[in-house]
Amino acid sequence: MSGLIDARMAELGITLPEAHPPLAAKIQPWARWGELLFISGAVPKLDGKPQFIGKVGREFGLAEGQAAARLSALNMLAHAKTALGGDLDAIKRILKINGFVNATPDFTEIPQVVNGASELFIDLFGEAGQHARTAVGVAVMPFDVAIEVEGIFVVDPAA
Amino acid sequence: MSGLIDARMAELGITLPEAHPPLAAKIQPWARWGELLFISGAVPKLDGKPQFIGKVGREFGLAEGQAAARLSALNMLAHAKTALGGDLDAIKRILKINGFVNATPDFTEIPQVVNGASELFIDLFGEAGQHARTAVGVAVMPFDVAIEVEGIFVVDPAA
Amino acid sequence: MSGLIDARMAELGITLPEAHPPLAAKIQPWARWGELLFISGAVPKLDGKPQFIGKVGREFGLAEGQAAARLSALNMLAHAKTALGGDLDAIKRILKINGFVNATPDFTEIPQVVNGASELFIDLFGEAGQHARTAVGVAVMPFDVAIEVEGIFVVDPAA
Repeated sequence: MSGLIDARMAELGITLPEAHPPLAAKIQPWARWGELLFISGAVPKLDGKPQFIGKVGREFGLAEGQAAARLSALNMLAHAKTALGGDLDAIKRILKINGFVNATPDFTEIPQVVNGASELFIDLFGEAGQHARTAVGVAVMPFDVAIEVEGIFVVDPAA
Repeated sequence: MSGLIDARMAELGITLPEAHPPLAAKIQPWARWGELLFISGAVPKLDGKPQFIGKVGREFGLAEGQAAARLSALNMLAHAKTALGGDLDAIKRILKINGFVNATPDFTEIPQVVNGASELFIDLFGEAGQHARTAVGVAVMPFDVAIEVEGIFVVDPAA
Repeated sequence: MSGLIDARMAELGITLPEAHPPLAAKIQPWARWGELLFISGAVPKLDGKPQFIGKVGREFGLAEGQAAARLSALNMLAHAKTALGGDLDAIKRILKINGFVNATPDFTEIPQVVNGASELFIDLFGEAGQHARTAVGVAVMPFDVAIEVEGIFVVDPAA
């Protein structure tokens, strides 16, 4: 299926990663309830393998942290696409995202890192990609990846 | 009142802890809005007393972390039971849970720890227990307990 | 516009800070969906400038942490007021808040700190201010502020 968001991704040269189930976790990558689609915390994975292993402020600088955030957001979209039977146009709103950054104690540019995810959503969805957000730095991360991002999307309940 | 979930708990040899109000916190253990039941962050308590005081990766290993996650989940259900007038069958869906693990910087098996909570919900509720989830490691925890788990359940609004 | 909550604030000697956009973040301070108003993680700001820079347990004690939590909550209300066209009475329920405290590893009075926000909501909104809550301690915070609080409010969809 090819829709408006697929076309926008092609225009921006964006390729979605494959949707892989969560690593070592007995959970679903998403859960739907009516118009709400909850996306489980997504780490930056390519071909199902975690990327950006390490802390922002030590192994990674700001630009790499932003790239990790963007890749997490792409994994969120990959899961949303599966949840919606392939139709990304069924996403009506990126409502809320939470970014948890694996950062050193002295690295406080947490919002700037999570902007890597927020900007992707705004680039792709325009006004509907505008969202509320919380961003914090955490001490330990699954698989020691640099970031984890979760979200709540509003979707067409018929999709 | 005895329902299907009560029977399933008896079959699995599970006893709910007593529902105690949050410690030192001027909040409610839950809040309802329509079909949504928000469960406040629950720590592993027995008889109202926090258990598993310490960090996973130092005081506790993976198996104990999982036991702490499971006990937190049981406390979530104890609060849900109170919220629903004793009727756990009014829970239609375990929609979302978030696990915050008090872990040492080198302990990265965070998802495996939180599986202790997820597996309990799936064992008890089957398909309706399948949920979206986020799990992160945090630096400091109320009362220094090993884990805190919060959740959003879909419930029968008439219960 | 002056309503019941405005009057209650005047009675309690409370002045809302000005609503300033999030610092360094390409996001919205809130997002609405039907009756739900999601408030982005708010830090303690005055005149748009972050206050309480540092960790609870090192730069700040419990009382200052509580003051920081309260100021974050006031910023949440300032954003809600803007979202609701100035009408704070359109807030029907403080449903859920999450408090992330920038604390030293030995400072475990996390719930007591976040009470600074919870008490403000209960003082202002009474029973409608009672909420579910999760409070954790985190390692790193945007701008190194002492606390960040986010929330979900139920609002009059016509406001």
